[in-house]
Amino acid sequence: MTTKAFHFEILRQNGTARLGLIHTRRGQIRTPAFMPVGTAATVKAVKPESVVSSGAEVILCNTYHLMLRPGAQIVEEFGGLHPFMNWSRPILTDSGGYQVMSLQALRRMTEQGVEFRSHIDGSLYKLSPETSMEIQRQLNSDIVMCLDECTPYPSSFDVAKTSMELSMRWAKRCRSSFGAPEGRALFGIQQGSIYRDLREESAAELRAIDFDGFAIGGLAVGEGQERMFEVLDYAPSMLPTHKPRYLMGVGKPPDIIGAVRRGVDMFDCVLPTRSGRTAQAFTSKGSLNLKNARFSRDQDALDISCACPTCRSYSRGYLHHLFKCKEMLGATLVSEHNLYFYQTMMAGIRDAISKGQFENFADQFLHCYGESNVDHQ
Amino acid sequence: MTTKAFHFEILRQNGTARLGLIHTRRGQIRTPAFMPVGTAATVKAVKPESVVSSGAEVILCNTYHLMLRPGAQIVEEFGGLHPFMNWSRPILTDSGGYQVMSLQALRRMTEQGVEFRSHIDGSLYKLSPETSMEIQRQLNSDIVMCLDECTPYPSSFDVAKTSMELSMRWAKRCRSSFGAPEGRALFGIQQGSIYRDLREESAAELRAIDFDGFAIGGLAVGEGQERMFEVLDYAPSMLPTHKPRYLMGVGKPPDIIGAVRRGVDMFDCVLPTRSGRTAQAFTSKGSLNLKNARFSRDQDALDISCACPTCRSYSRGYLHHLFKCKEMLGATLVSEHNLYFYQTMMAGIRDAISKGQFENFADQFLHCYGESNVDHQ
Repeated sequence: MTTKAFHFEILRQNGTARLGLIHTRRGQIRTPAFMPVGTAATVKAVKPESVVSSGAEVILCNTYHLMLRPGAQIVEEFGGLHPFMNWSRPILTDSGGYQVMSLQALRRMTEQGVEFRSHIDGSLYKLSPETSMEIQRQLNSDIVMCLDECTPYPSSFDVAKTSMELSMRWAKRCRSSFGAPEGRALFGIQQGSIYRDLREESAAELRAIDFDGFAIGGLAVGEGQERMFEVLDYAPSMLPTHKPRYLMGVGKPPDIIGAVRRGVDMFDCVLPTRSGRTAQAFTSKGSLNLKNARFSRDQDALDISCACPTCRSYSRGYLHHLFKCKEMLGATLVSEHNLYFYQTMMAGIRDAISKGQFENFADQFLHCYGESNVDHQ
Repeated sequence: MTTKAFHFEILRQNGTARLGLIHTRRGQIRTPAFMPVGTAATVKAVKPESVVSSGAEVILCNTYHLMLRPGAQIVEEFGGLHPFMNWSRPILTDSGGYQVMSLQALRRMTEQGVEFRSHIDGSLYKLSPETSMEIQRQLNSDIVMCLDECTPYPSSFDVAKTSMELSMRWAKRCRSSFGAPEGRALFGIQQGSIYRDLREESAAELRAIDFDGFAIGGLAVGEGQERMFEVLDYAPSMLPTHKPRYLMGVGKPPDIIGAVRRGVDMFDCVLPTRSGRTAQAFTSKGSLNLKNARFSRDQDALDISCACPTCRSYSRGYLHHLFKCKEMLGATLVSEHNLYFYQTMMAGIRDAISKGQFENFADQFLHCYGESNVDHQ
């Protein structure tokens, strides 16, 4: 039932950390992989060629935003997201459900699906497992996500169970509606909040349906790193070994390191680009905020150990100046640096696993970075 | 008294239109030349490498903005504007006077100079011929402009005369203060409003002082194209033949064509980038506003006859989508296209003059473009 043109190879393991390769109709994705977020069919403030040169092999686009603007029908007329946005590598689209719920656009939720009002013009939309599959078909993404309910945190066991069971019924409907389109892959999403029994039930359901890959949903929603890692201590191993595992919406560099250690293969997060637009730069020694006056005369590169185009050609002082003057180029240059930083970290992770040295790499990275505190400087 | 490393060659003339080459310490500038504006040490929303690939050989930066932020002292600490902003080709800086007066920051004007309050934090600054030369030295620009008073339009003959005479006294002080720094050039600025006698008096004064180049100031300040062309029918010929002539702040494509026809060699204008940020695109058939709903399903390039990176990879429909979603990439892509459009027009002008066909080129360009109406579509 899985898609022929899409498959996953595990090349090496260090403990539960995996080095892998996802083969898609639009080329390979080396895992562990980080997917920059291109919400509205653009990785904000960055050209596609710069996303490519940062090392990204796959990006994520948001079904919710695209179904509202420009509309899935229009994207389809342009031949799908790839020609529309000038990105030729793989694209993963989410289901739309997360934004409907998190943007509080939700109007009514039933067994059938969700009704919501556009946050732009208030008009009424319906999203069901079937319409989500149809919209993602129109977008022509390479990896499609099931519509699910991202269970809020905290939730009681009973609420989390009811929510997870709905997501599993929807997962079946997604699988059935998706069919077997040549070259496109469908991922199921495990729910169950922080309850091990529910995570196991969810995983069992998803294994029975079968998918091309499996996401771990309902994390990074406010539970904190410690609790997230507790769930990741058992959740990934409940999912099939020979399929990619994707931790949605994660995260900060130490979150990614910890999740790779626990067997996760794929990540996405707005952090590198959102931070880039607010002058927050990731460096090997933690993050720094370029708006700080102490950078005004600083002639060093953002990160002296970084080889990205921003660090090769610009000083912290110049970047500080751009942000002080609200010049768009600041957002572009720091977003590009941050994307490069993330991809360089992923490349470091992959290299370490390939050499059997993931634990050394992780210890060294976290020590240098300042453990889990992104804002320690 | 002029600078050795800086000189101007005239390669060919068609009537009064001139094909030339300015030699500078940072490379050659083919004329007629258009200078993109990098107000605060950045051509807004565009990376330097894209400014280069548009064909620009020189940019303009604004002394007023840079003396306020980050401050000329800081730019000097970074080695001047070139390393600060990652631009290795020539830079022309204006004197700061125009913004002081046009931004109504002016507090007091005397024979000595102007006192003004920063539009950013209200702090008090002084700008005199001597301080303007000093600030431009700190910025380390290649072409330095004299401090002058840009006579407002309309002005009576007496007001224009008094203003012009002050500018000429300041021009002498600029020349004297500037000295003869290796490789840097100083341009004088002709004033005199729309009065031929005053333009002649001003030109005579400037010729007597001697400069590396001569600007025509006090135009493009509301007098309209017809009146501007009337002045340009005589003003350029009052300036030395073998020095470059620069028409400040111009302009729309038909303004540039008409000024080249009348013997102008250099131009600067914010129009390509300012328009780019507001979704206004220049094309060979006039300009178009990409926010217009009629572009939402338009799969054509901005300009099918354009070979710029934006036109090679993006549709009008996608650009429309970016502006609707207020995505920064829209400003970047359209600004880059507009810069490319301007430089392609300048290359077309130069090519036509070199073949003795400037008038044919001008007629054809203006016919296709829709004469002087930028917004005819």
